[in-house]
Amino acid sequence: MDSVITLDYGSGGKKTAALIDELIVPVLGNPFLNTLSDGAVLPSSGQIVFSTDSFVVSPWRFPGGDIGKLAVCGTVNDIAVSGGRPRFISLSLILEEGFPTEDLREILRSLRRTADEAGVKIVTGDTKVVERGKADGIYINTSGIGELVCPGLTPETMRPGDRVLLSGPAGDHGTAVMLARHSGLLEGELPSDCGPMHRLCGSLFALGPSLRVMRDPTRGGNATTLCELAEKTACSVELDEEAVPVRPGVRSACDLLGLDPLYCACEGRILAVAAPDAADEALCRMRELPEGSGAEIIGEVRESHPGKVCLRTAAGGTRILTKLSGAQLPRIC
Amino acid sequence: MDSVITLDYGSGGKKTAALIDELIVPVLGNPFLNTLSDGAVLPSSGQIVFSTDSFVVSPWRFPGGDIGKLAVCGTVNDIAVSGGRPRFISLSLILEEGFPTEDLREILRSLRRTADEAGVKIVTGDTKVVERGKADGIYINTSGIGELVCPGLTPETMRPGDRVLLSGPAGDHGTAVMLARHSGLLEGELPSDCGPMHRLCGSLFALGPSLRVMRDPTRGGNATTLCELAEKTACSVELDEEAVPVRPGVRSACDLLGLDPLYCACEGRILAVAAPDAADEALCRMRELPEGSGAEIIGEVRESHPGKVCLRTAAGGTRILTKLSGAQLPRIC
Repeated sequence: MDSVITLDYGSGGKKTAALIDELIVPVLGNPFLNTLSDGAVLPSSGQIVFSTDSFVVSPWRFPGGDIGKLAVCGTVNDIAVSGGRPRFISLSLILEEGFPTEDLREILRSLRRTADEAGVKIVTGDTKVVERGKADGIYINTSGIGELVCPGLTPETMRPGDRVLLSGPAGDHGTAVMLARHSGLLEGELPSDCGPMHRLCGSLFALGPSLRVMRDPTRGGNATTLCELAEKTACSVELDEEAVPVRPGVRSACDLLGLDPLYCACEGRILAVAAPDAADEALCRMRELPEGSGAEIIGEVRESHPGKVCLRTAAGGTRILTKLSGAQLPRIC
Repeated sequence: MDSVITLDYGSGGKKTAALIDELIVPVLGNPFLNTLSDGAVLPSSGQIVFSTDSFVVSPWRFPGGDIGKLAVCGTVNDIAVSGGRPRFISLSLILEEGFPTEDLREILRSLRRTADEAGVKIVTGDTKVVERGKADGIYINTSGIGELVCPGLTPETMRPGDRVLLSGPAGDHGTAVMLARHSGLLEGELPSDCGPMHRLCGSLFALGPSLRVMRDPTRGGNATTLCELAEKTACSVELDEEAVPVRPGVRSACDLLGLDPLYCACEGRILAVAAPDAADEALCRMRELPEGSGAEIIGEVRESHPGKVCLRTAAGGTRILTKLSGAQLPRIC
């Protein structure tokens, strides 16, 4: 292997084979991937959940994670909130000519470690190389397949009185990436929350139909995600500003950067809506896991203002929240 | 919609919603996609085939196709050669700030048309926008799921005496893209072969175990693909140079560009290896379809030189073919 990625590594010929044999398979290898055929043949039964995400985060390394960890968590979490048990992941790399081979190795190791933690196998892949100036180091697509174990999670099942839960503090990921971008700060007191949420979602599946719907509040943050849920229903969501957990450091950083934590991306949090009589159990189930130890009930589904999200502010007022307008945080994931 | 894509369209907020609601869903919509949830819930039974590919072709429009058509065909064909019937496709877009909205619409229409032709549904997706100078207009990832209908297609099943078939002329796609890149020629007599091969592969599945293995000879062309097959066996492949169909125009263009048609990418051809007594039926099955009308038997599996590909040249000599060395054709797919 050369010390940087050259266009030759994307040719489909000898260099591509060397990249796969010497770098990718030793780190990511498993019996499915090792066949290196055009498609992976996988077991399946019943209904499946299928999801895809491309990751273009800048910088690719940030406090608490990197693009590799993010790429696994993003797809694992999308499957989990859809009611699936994540099983298989595909990995497609777009590399910029000149990207350091050692950085690629670090990212592959991070992908492997996170996949192992999330219980998914990376079973098929693809690598392309583009000329210098036609990417930004590395972009990653992961797509994933899960087994549907909890069907029927849709916003249409939400009813007035349902409670809205958030599994931990808001806005950690967005803030961590923005700080890394503006200050070059890669280690710090404000790490991203980036992490796999399959276990927490799996625990909530036990609530059955009392679990209405789940989402991971990534781009656009909790406010935008709740707006997307509310507009698919005949109800509104009333969010209690004081109940939304926000780390003091994240609040200060957001003040400094001119951001609102409610609109900052999370990459290891789950928004869940549960029936009134199941909300306490949902909260307990979240809190008994380390990744849900900071969970709170942050709001309630209401009849008034159908399709809207209303914020009950700390000062006692109420205002309507809308979806994120413009690119507050470009390339956060 | 604005006339060009801005960073706001990747924010996850209002503009992203507008892009999805006003441009993507009207063109690509179907009941699975229209739920716009984090993952698509799909029916499945038995074993599945899973494949992924990112497409970075430059220019994005070329004679006979564009990046949208290519993105569907690439994944459909990977599933088909793996023994699968393609069913579902994910679509992930990486757009460069400033990309014209009308070009995006044209590409989406091409994706839809090709998906309809190939009998697959685009069921889930993702869109990211990166700053000007951090991409090259548009990159597309598609991942796909098929139902396994023809298990056991692996190079390890190849035996001496087996015949090697190619479903049509070699090198059309690579030549078309290179001509478009160097001359700006977008219409011409040398179109890409880019096309879905699910029907042709499906017809060959009827051969049962007499069908040994299939591949689509994309990056690195037929020579590299056959090298990859041969090195996984204890046999060699003897390729008959005179039997490999190459269009006269492609041969001339390759001479001009200093390329070898055997190393030029195809995007609508299938290499198939069949048992000796099934080779004629395989050839008939290919030729009775328009996409296989130019099929030929181009070589044979041999005992000598295990793991190698030998070319019997028109002049009567023999030489060993190796995998493509270096980046003969960067960003061809």
